[in-house]
Amino acid sequence: MAEITGTTRLFAILADPIHHVRTPQAVNAYAKARGYDGVLVPMHVNAEGLSEVVSALRQLENLGGVIVTVPHKTAIAALCDDLSPNARRIGAVNAVRREADGRLVGEMLDGAGFVRGLKVNGIDPAGMRAYLAGAGGAANAIAFALAEAGVSALTIANRTRAKAEDLKARLAEAYPALAVAIGTPDPSGHHLVVNGTSLGLKDGDALPFDAERLSADQIVAEIIMQPAETAILAAAKARGCRTHPGRPMLAEQVALMCDFLGIA
Amino acid sequence: MAEITGTTRLFAILADPIHHVRTPQAVNAYAKARGYDGVLVPMHVNAEGLSEVVSALRQLENLGGVIVTVPHKTAIAALCDDLSPNARRIGAVNAVRREADGRLVGEMLDGAGFVRGLKVNGIDPAGMRAYLAGAGGAANAIAFALAEAGVSALTIANRTRAKAEDLKARLAEAYPALAVAIGTPDPSGHHLVVNGTSLGLKDGDALPFDAERLSADQIVAEIIMQPAETAILAAAKARGCRTHPGRPMLAEQVALMCDFLGIA
Repeated sequence: MAEITGTTRLFAILADPIHHVRTPQAVNAYAKARGYDGVLVPMHVNAEGLSEVVSALRQLENLGGVIVTVPHKTAIAALCDDLSPNARRIGAVNAVRREADGRLVGEMLDGAGFVRGLKVNGIDPAGMRAYLAGAGGAANAIAFALAEAGVSALTIANRTRAKAEDLKARLAEAYPALAVAIGTPDPSGHHLVVNGTSLGLKDGDALPFDAERLSADQIVAEIIMQPAETAILAAAKARGCRTHPGRPMLAEQVALMCDFLGIA
Repeated sequence: MAEITGTTRLFAILADPIHHVRTPQAVNAYAKARGYDGVLVPMHVNAEGLSEVVSALRQLENLGGVIVTVPHKTAIAALCDDLSPNARRIGAVNAVRREADGRLVGEMLDGAGFVRGLKVNGIDPAGMRAYLAGAGGAANAIAFALAEAGVSALTIANRTRAKAEDLKARLAEAYPALAVAIGTPDPSGHHLVVNGTSLGLKDGDALPFDAERLSADQIVAEIIMQPAETAILAAAKARGCRTHPGRPMLAEQVALMCDFLGIA
């Protein structure tokens, strides 16, 4: 950490709970390495308080922007003044830039960070048949990023089918050539299998899909960062699958977030 | 600076302008020396935005409190849920502690910091006849602290006489034995002469009192921290007075603020 002074530009991460976030360490190290006079601090705010906090953040003239995580990624989208086309399609935001006039512009970088993480790990989704468990905020971001990265087909499996159907419809609109299907808990027949749910964050969570149907030729990827090895990754490894943990998604996103927020 | 993580307790200083504040450096060094997991960051907010920002700060569950400086010290008092007896008498606040339930408790430490700074510099105001220029927020704090420190008489000189009269009345109530007078720009006849106005902060400001009436047996003290030597201090030095700069007030206040805010 560089020293914080009266000229230091302020950035915050909004989350509930907050104790597990690792973005401050990563962004502050990134800023320090570049000699950028800015600091990212944790702000623990719950769903009821979010709107009031966001209104107030507009008033802070030295605020550069905020990073947003669980459970605020969808709610924050409605509180921004403008959204990137990507954030608008996804309906969720994880980075908000504060313009000089106080306007808040939202972007969603989860998906791009996830795909960059895969590529750094030598996994290029282009041409792959992908399976995605979940249709929430993070899963939406990953679905659009996988489409953008050129998967040949995408299967969405979600407990609430209507949310998967809604995601499918929005994908079809943005990527009309992509084959999108609604799936079951069975991930077989896909090259790349992704957990886009929060199942695995807590001990005793159900598995996000049926691990017994995995085969050794499949790649299983995770978005959960902690634990580093979730139950589904352990099960996939036991079945001989190549696995890809959640951590690289954050590492790759830090550069994307800093770029979007002007930390350079 | 220690590393900022998801468990780091957040503190902010509210000011407008903000670039000159030195409290983040001082408080963060204090916290680091004690191994306290907390960070103080600058929040640049103007008078119109203050109320909204303060409401929002209640919502931040990891907020420990705020430090408040120009121009918000009076306005913030009305936004707190509770005030210390000292802050209530002064009608201004420079430190706000956020209780676990979100309640905001205000305290005013400018005066105590100023008196501690004098004492560290070997100047004990007890028994002295003191002259104070100004009757604003900082001057109010200093007046009550000088009374508490046992000055034998206190003269208040302010351009707007009604504000000096109001301060005199409140002093009389809290310290009925103290001789309080309303003064003129002439500081002669006092052991200790204090600039409690903001005159001297900007180049070309008028002097806060008549420097030509100073004599070499007087001590002239300042609350302005930057420049380190204001025009009135330079003039006092030229007339042979002992001078006391503004900086020690901040240094001494840091310990008081950290104690009040639970940074220990």
